[in-house]
Amino acid sequence: MLEQRTRHIHVTDDFWGRYIDIVKEKVIPYQWAALHDGIEGAAPSHAIENLKIAAGEAEGEFHGFVFQDSDVAKWIEAAAYTLAERPDPELEQRCDELIALISRAQQPDGYLNTHYTIKAPTKRWTNLRDNHELYVAGHLIEAAVAYYETTGKQALLDVVCKFADLIDQVFGPEPGKLRGYDGHQEIELALLKLYRVKGDRRYLRLAQFFIEERGKEPHFFDDEAKKRGEDGTFWYSGRYEYSQSHLPVRQQQEATGHAVRAVYMYTAMADLANETDDEQLAKVCRTLWDNVTNQQMYITGGIGSAEFGEAFTFAYDLPNDLAYTETCASIGLVFWAKNMLELEADSRYGDVMERALYNGTISGIQLDGTKFFYVNPLEVWPQAAKHRHDLKHVKTERQPWFGCACCPPNIARLLASIGQYIYTTKNQTGFIHLYIGNESTLTIGSGEVGLKMKSSFPWKGEVGLEVNPDTSRPFTLAFRIPSWANDYQLTVNGHFVDVEVRDGYAYVERTWQKGDHISIQFPLETKVIYAHPEVRANAGKIALQRGPIVFCAEEADNGSNLQSVAIRCQENIDASFDTDRLNGVIVLEGKGVRTVTANANGSLYLAKEALQTEEVTLQFIPYYAWANRGEGEMAVWLRHR
Amino acid sequence: MLEQRTRHIHVTDDFWGRYIDIVKEKVIPYQWAALHDGIEGAAPSHAIENLKIAAGEAEGEFHGFVFQDSDVAKWIEAAAYTLAERPDPELEQRCDELIALISRAQQPDGYLNTHYTIKAPTKRWTNLRDNHELYVAGHLIEAAVAYYETTGKQALLDVVCKFADLIDQVFGPEPGKLRGYDGHQEIELALLKLYRVKGDRRYLRLAQFFIEERGKEPHFFDDEAKKRGEDGTFWYSGRYEYSQSHLPVRQQQEATGHAVRAVYMYTAMADLANETDDEQLAKVCRTLWDNVTNQQMYITGGIGSAEFGEAFTFAYDLPNDLAYTETCASIGLVFWAKNMLELEADSRYGDVMERALYNGTISGIQLDGTKFFYVNPLEVWPQAAKHRHDLKHVKTERQPWFGCACCPPNIARLLASIGQYIYTTKNQTGFIHLYIGNESTLTIGSGEVGLKMKSSFPWKGEVGLEVNPDTSRPFTLAFRIPSWANDYQLTVNGHFVDVEVRDGYAYVERTWQKGDHISIQFPLETKVIYAHPEVRANAGKIALQRGPIVFCAEEADNGSNLQSVAIRCQENIDASFDTDRLNGVIVLEGKGVRTVTANANGSLYLAKEALQTEEVTLQFIPYYAWANRGEGEMAVWLRHR
Repeated sequence: MLEQRTRHIHVTDDFWGRYIDIVKEKVIPYQWAALHDGIEGAAPSHAIENLKIAAGEAEGEFHGFVFQDSDVAKWIEAAAYTLAERPDPELEQRCDELIALISRAQQPDGYLNTHYTIKAPTKRWTNLRDNHELYVAGHLIEAAVAYYETTGKQALLDVVCKFADLIDQVFGPEPGKLRGYDGHQEIELALLKLYRVKGDRRYLRLAQFFIEERGKEPHFFDDEAKKRGEDGTFWYSGRYEYSQSHLPVRQQQEATGHAVRAVYMYTAMADLANETDDEQLAKVCRTLWDNVTNQQMYITGGIGSAEFGEAFTFAYDLPNDLAYTETCASIGLVFWAKNMLELEADSRYGDVMERALYNGTISGIQLDGTKFFYVNPLEVWPQAAKHRHDLKHVKTERQPWFGCACCPPNIARLLASIGQYIYTTKNQTGFIHLYIGNESTLTIGSGEVGLKMKSSFPWKGEVGLEVNPDTSRPFTLAFRIPSWANDYQLTVNGHFVDVEVRDGYAYVERTWQKGDHISIQFPLETKVIYAHPEVRANAGKIALQRGPIVFCAEEADNGSNLQSVAIRCQENIDASFDTDRLNGVIVLEGKGVRTVTANANGSLYLAKEALQTEEVTLQFIPYYAWANRGEGEMAVWLRHR
Repeated sequence: MLEQRTRHIHVTDDFWGRYIDIVKEKVIPYQWAALHDGIEGAAPSHAIENLKIAAGEAEGEFHGFVFQDSDVAKWIEAAAYTLAERPDPELEQRCDELIALISRAQQPDGYLNTHYTIKAPTKRWTNLRDNHELYVAGHLIEAAVAYYETTGKQALLDVVCKFADLIDQVFGPEPGKLRGYDGHQEIELALLKLYRVKGDRRYLRLAQFFIEERGKEPHFFDDEAKKRGEDGTFWYSGRYEYSQSHLPVRQQQEATGHAVRAVYMYTAMADLANETDDEQLAKVCRTLWDNVTNQQMYITGGIGSAEFGEAFTFAYDLPNDLAYTETCASIGLVFWAKNMLELEADSRYGDVMERALYNGTISGIQLDGTKFFYVNPLEVWPQAAKHRHDLKHVKTERQPWFGCACCPPNIARLLASIGQYIYTTKNQTGFIHLYIGNESTLTIGSGEVGLKMKSSFPWKGEVGLEVNPDTSRPFTLAFRIPSWANDYQLTVNGHFVDVEVRDGYAYVERTWQKGDHISIQFPLETKVIYAHPEVRANAGKIALQRGPIVFCAEEADNGSNLQSVAIRCQENIDASFDTDRLNGVIVLEGKGVRTVTANANGSLYLAKEALQTEEVTLQFIPYYAWANRGEGEMAVWLRHR
């Protein structure tokens, strides 16, 4: 094992702590039941049963998607993070038993994939393009790393190392090995995690191989299809753009294709650039980052504006109603942002990470943790979602489970590990990217530093940080100044101190003593946000944001037909905390006008005189909390006057 | 034959005469070549070849859609109307030869359908739901009626009567007959035309049977599917709403499903209600009319707002970019409007007929007659149309031909017969619905009346009508007052006369003399049109209309990103005729502002200060003429301030 830099983080935050609680109390048990086919009315997952069959402990056929095993892996990963935050011997025992089952399902040579083991043992590695074989392996590796890091238990780590060793024998640039890679990126980022835990550079090199090989000609997916006797046509109109294998990754400048695959790949690329000091690759990551966040990202941190291919489209194409904006894609954006921050501290990454976390990721989970959105649109007209085939992907209420259940366990593992996104460290500097209450110990420079953060985010902008270094010594703490903060006040032990601001971070360098206390105050103002004029969908419209929270209007508060109202955004917009609404949220209230018909003769097309406006009061709730009060219309962007 | 009321109409109009010319000079010859597989680069139609094979005069397989014969029928129908307007012996001879071929392809028992005759002679009438067998028959009947009425030649009429007699033996309420109907309505309206020409009430009763039987339970399409051994599932999510067979027609209150099928059916229903004095059925027609035109119709007269099923969706769901608005659906709306006018003179029908004619139908044909739109959206962003799968139906430029070539011959037959839509007569009254220059003879009351209309529509509002009754006698002429006309001046022989206005028509009752001259002046003002507030897609937007013409903004005149501009619609909008643009059109010009970025830091989400507005001059051209100057953005609805 590599020597690990200490990073013990325990989240004590009100806002995120509640999410960790629901993951532990609702999501983990529910998904456990789902994996065991114990949810009445839900299509059986069969995932555990598949493992038993593969282990020779049950009879039957494989059922589910080719990537069904990944649901088990993501559950273990979520459970691992949960155990770190909320120890639970019973849950740990369940995990250990499940891991034992997984190890029994592993084949003697290390292979592990119940789909192939049960259904087509001779067909291993014959359809990387479609069948997620390495993707599933990647999730198992991530689960193993997480479980090892949070419990210290190696059983699953041993399993995945054996599997990774097999993969390393099968894939690679050497003669006789497959020069291939998975259609769905995931193993790349996982192998880099495994490398950091095990210190074995073979895993780094294998991740590097998968990344560098991608998109080269002659195209692996073409060769593979030829071997299978297929004609090589592909359902996606952009062909290999779907899996970002249309070009070698170093030549890619625009995010394209399946959004989750894309950001999982960029996550791995940033990590690889960091681990190998590869400035050229880092530059590719920055170019892609700018493309995604400056041209293809919704204000919620949602990405992927098309249902077809669950994909990116092109610059400024951000329709609010047709948006796909998969929960998993926003989660992947958080992963990527984190690795960009590990690469270089620049608040543009932290800002996007915060934007996605407080909006487009947690919109995917019901406030009570029992239901999930796969798709997170920014505007919903329930009648259209029901009648229009081009909106068939849009659900107006969260669903208990999905046939393709990628998002629920993904959001669970993100929430349970939220603490991992607060800090990064580099040399003598500890970076604070997120203001989430926590009690942690980090290695900064030569020793350990205890940190105790209290935060009133996202409702208020007050942050307190108690610093407890192992011994008084000089180092730097760098605090992200959110792009939404016009101003801030930072004091150490009650006194203003010299601060250097660089790339959106306030650097405080001093000799820190045990008990030093930093206080930061970010004024939270309600901001009226305009979209870039090239975003045609938002022309003439505004959105409201307060701190990191993006707001929306719902039918429950404003009646139907949200398009008929325009907010008077030059006038005061009041913000007040409503303890009774939606588990307690800030509600914004402003003046507006509603256009109605003056004389309803029924005509569709009217003269101005046939219309009139009524003064109305409009209320806005946090976007993440929409659709928690039954079905209704919702809009993030509203017309203004 | 029934005694025909005289109705000789010859169009002399500048605007529509040009279209008749291009139908004769471009469309008819091009489609003739297409039917004969003579267009280089176009997928072969094989339609003529199919007829030859069915006639035993060629070897080979059937190729094309199951309804391929209907392209031939529609071509003959268009040619027939063209011959009436522009006599041409050579064209007539081609028609005669083609008709002879058709009659040789007819089977001894009267059956006529090359698909079944060649491919599946034993499978006749086994899949009415999908295979358009009666639809094709309907188009043949329409062609035969048109050719008979314009040339007096009976050969094709004899063919279709023999076929109709066979259909009458196969279908009907009597025991042993099929209680079925076609998935695509068409034969219903055709049989009513045949009834009027032949006077044989069997055809009326058969049309009535098809209309009344539709949607009854047990469902014919279910029974039929069971007989074929299919499980009865249907691809369309709304199932039989797709073909308006979800309910008996008298119970239908909302337009649903495939828009062309719907309006073809409503056309027949209105005709049947008229022919049989069926007030209950007339009421159903009115209910459906109100539903379509007050809740589901675009300002262009386009209908069918969804690509999936080429279908109606629900009230006020009128997205401009996703619109399907098939050319054929607008054409069908014109047919229906005409039959509603035959039923009762109410300007709401005439207004919609005019709206569809000057906008959503002729937008389907390139100004030079060589290319066609199937889909007529009201807003186009070419990049989105190319990249977004949900916009894959949208073409940014008209196409030379389609695999499913329904629209090009349909627009051809409409344009060539445009004269048929100008007048209706009832008892002592001649109704003038459209102001299209023509020289005609109608039967009004007891005798014939010659009419010579001159019109400056759509660019100016001056109409002159010379009335030449066979003898001086009293009758009434009723002139539609378009809904867009705030006012009008009507004089007879230079003097204002008493006029009774009823249901949008100005009734002039007097003893008419040879040479009486009516002059009408409709002031053409540019109107700023607002959509009903329930039309969410048009909130905050306006459209411009002048007389019957709906305008649009194009990139060619206004640069890209039409959403970034807002028109100052309270200020003067200038209208001037531009002889050089688009064959000569009125161009509107107004002031507006364009939102641009003040400092382009690349961010997607901005504060107000990051934006600024520039004063711009905006130009608008008639919607029908869009996409005649290469590819570019287009919008009918623009933001206003």
